[in-house]
Amino acid sequence: MMVNTPRRMVILTDGYSDSHAAKTAVCVVRYKPEEVVAVLDAASAGKTAGEVLGAGGSIPVVGRLADARGANTLLIGIAPSGGKMPLRWRPVVLDAIRRRMTVVSGLHDLLKHDAEFTAAAGEYGAALVDLRDNDESDVASGEPFRAECLRIHTIANDCSVGKMVAAVELAGGLRHVGIDAQFVATGQTGMLIAGGGCAVDRVISDFVAGAAEKLVRANEHHDVVVVEGQGSLFHPRYSGVTMSLLHGIRPDGMVLVYEMGRTSVHGMERFPLPTPRRTVQYYEETAGIVHPGRVIGVAVNGRRFTDAQLEAECARVEDELELPACDVLRHGPAKLVEAVGRMRPRSP
Amino acid sequence: MMVNTPRRMVILTDGYSDSHAAKTAVCVVRYKPEEVVAVLDAASAGKTAGEVLGAGGSIPVVGRLADARGANTLLIGIAPSGGKMPLRWRPVVLDAIRRRMTVVSGLHDLLKHDAEFTAAAGEYGAALVDLRDNDESDVASGEPFRAECLRIHTIANDCSVGKMVAAVELAGGLRHVGIDAQFVATGQTGMLIAGGGCAVDRVISDFVAGAAEKLVRANEHHDVVVVEGQGSLFHPRYSGVTMSLLHGIRPDGMVLVYEMGRTSVHGMERFPLPTPRRTVQYYEETAGIVHPGRVIGVAVNGRRFTDAQLEAECARVEDELELPACDVLRHGPAKLVEAVGRMRPRSP
Repeated sequence: MMVNTPRRMVILTDGYSDSHAAKTAVCVVRYKPEEVVAVLDAASAGKTAGEVLGAGGSIPVVGRLADARGANTLLIGIAPSGGKMPLRWRPVVLDAIRRRMTVVSGLHDLLKHDAEFTAAAGEYGAALVDLRDNDESDVASGEPFRAECLRIHTIANDCSVGKMVAAVELAGGLRHVGIDAQFVATGQTGMLIAGGGCAVDRVISDFVAGAAEKLVRANEHHDVVVVEGQGSLFHPRYSGVTMSLLHGIRPDGMVLVYEMGRTSVHGMERFPLPTPRRTVQYYEETAGIVHPGRVIGVAVNGRRFTDAQLEAECARVEDELELPACDVLRHGPAKLVEAVGRMRPRSP
Repeated sequence: MMVNTPRRMVILTDGYSDSHAAKTAVCVVRYKPEEVVAVLDAASAGKTAGEVLGAGGSIPVVGRLADARGANTLLIGIAPSGGKMPLRWRPVVLDAIRRRMTVVSGLHDLLKHDAEFTAAAGEYGAALVDLRDNDESDVASGEPFRAECLRIHTIANDCSVGKMVAAVELAGGLRHVGIDAQFVATGQTGMLIAGGGCAVDRVISDFVAGAAEKLVRANEHHDVVVVEGQGSLFHPRYSGVTMSLLHGIRPDGMVLVYEMGRTSVHGMERFPLPTPRRTVQYYEETAGIVHPGRVIGVAVNGRRFTDAQLEAECARVEDELELPACDVLRHGPAKLVEAVGRMRPRSP
């Protein structure tokens, strides 16, 4: 679906600002700060987004909706596993509706399926926008894409490691050196940044590869498309989403993303994570079922580590995999931009 | 969903009886002949199901709904790629509704979303049953299953090769030798045979592994569950469905199903099929991400070949893979029953 980008948002993270689930809020204040009026989290009222979320600079954190002056949109700022809204947020959503604000949500539990929200929205004339809503119903065709369009895809050993950030930064870096590159969003947060895309994890499973193929098809006039990854082939919950996306996109090049220090699947500690080498081998093998794709670089997420530790990790993984490695937020994406540059023009 | 098994069905295959899509009809007349009054296909009226579908013996093929005496249910008897109903079947469905028959469909295009069908059903008091409809919304937990329950799963190099038939025959063969085995349906045709299950290919992609896990959980009181496979890890359209199912079930043993003579993906000729050896290797590697599962036998579908050719193929693949191989419809499932028997009791 296309999204009419909300212009003056207050982002609801109340009680979740320091959790992994707040990644939606973190990315929106990082990449769309000009559209964000405030972050709503009572416990941190008076602080700034930079202090509370680690991004968003001086955007204020407020304690009540009434304090978000000028906001016309309430954004549900979390992406919890399973996609359900905390019960205690319901009064805030209803308050926003009564103020005739547009409510934007990326949750699996759609606003439009909530009788109380839709009744209130009808009464007050407020709009409800469900980023994950879709009516995808086409299987993949498998027909070739435009040969001159290079397809890059961010992949990972786990969920919530920074695949979207790596894709956004890489596409921006490519454009910065004059390459016609387009970020393609496959999840709700990416859609807020791109202004379009499809949340493939809420597509009916038979049609995920078809939806992914259509996203690429709609952008293949660009020289490079950088498609955001979802989940991981190694995640017991979401591996199939990742697989369908991989086979629908048929990437020429993949960028491996992982977070330093993680040893088990996020939220499923009984499942250990694979090594970077194993991750590369299995993704290349799996991509190759439909199209030969190679891992061309590594985006290390070193957010919990010092610069020295991050440098050591990047050097280690570069040596182990013989691939360029960097943290796109701390080093910039130059190494990955160069890796993409080395792929073009493609061999026939 | 649970299905109230329809009791006196006429199966609509009009114009599709000799196509691959008629597999729903073929399997229902094979495994539920006592519930089938007739098959509806005008071009073959006067013949028998055995002659037209290769199964179902003397069940008559009729040319008009009015000729299916005593039928109280119309079953849409095809499973086309993408799941859409042929337009020229709509008058037949409306005729059935006017006759107050229950209409049962396994198509992706749900009857309940069709305004003309629902209006007619309301007017005449007819029931519409969508086998693929579901409201699955739970992610997989990854929590262990009952250790004493052996999980068997049929897998394949392609779609439409006989995974459901192999699972039904294997479960029946196990029960025949006194083992408490249960067939678990994951698709619409299997659901008609089992009287329950879930069409996982129509579940929202984030929840497919969760739905599969729940199917096993609901049956883990049996000594053996034999879970029907869907699609193939090598199918560009459906690989993600297969992956989620595999990781939700976490099989201990897998039975590889393939059809002799196929060289490319069904309906996607640009994609070659892998060898049996490669298929086994990749499925074991992929299953192993969450649980160690081994391929324990091979179900060869030799329907297009002579007995001698089939015997030679089974001998060849037994030698190549060092696994027992048989055609479950022509040889019975004894070799696979024995292979499961050798797995129990499991090593800790």
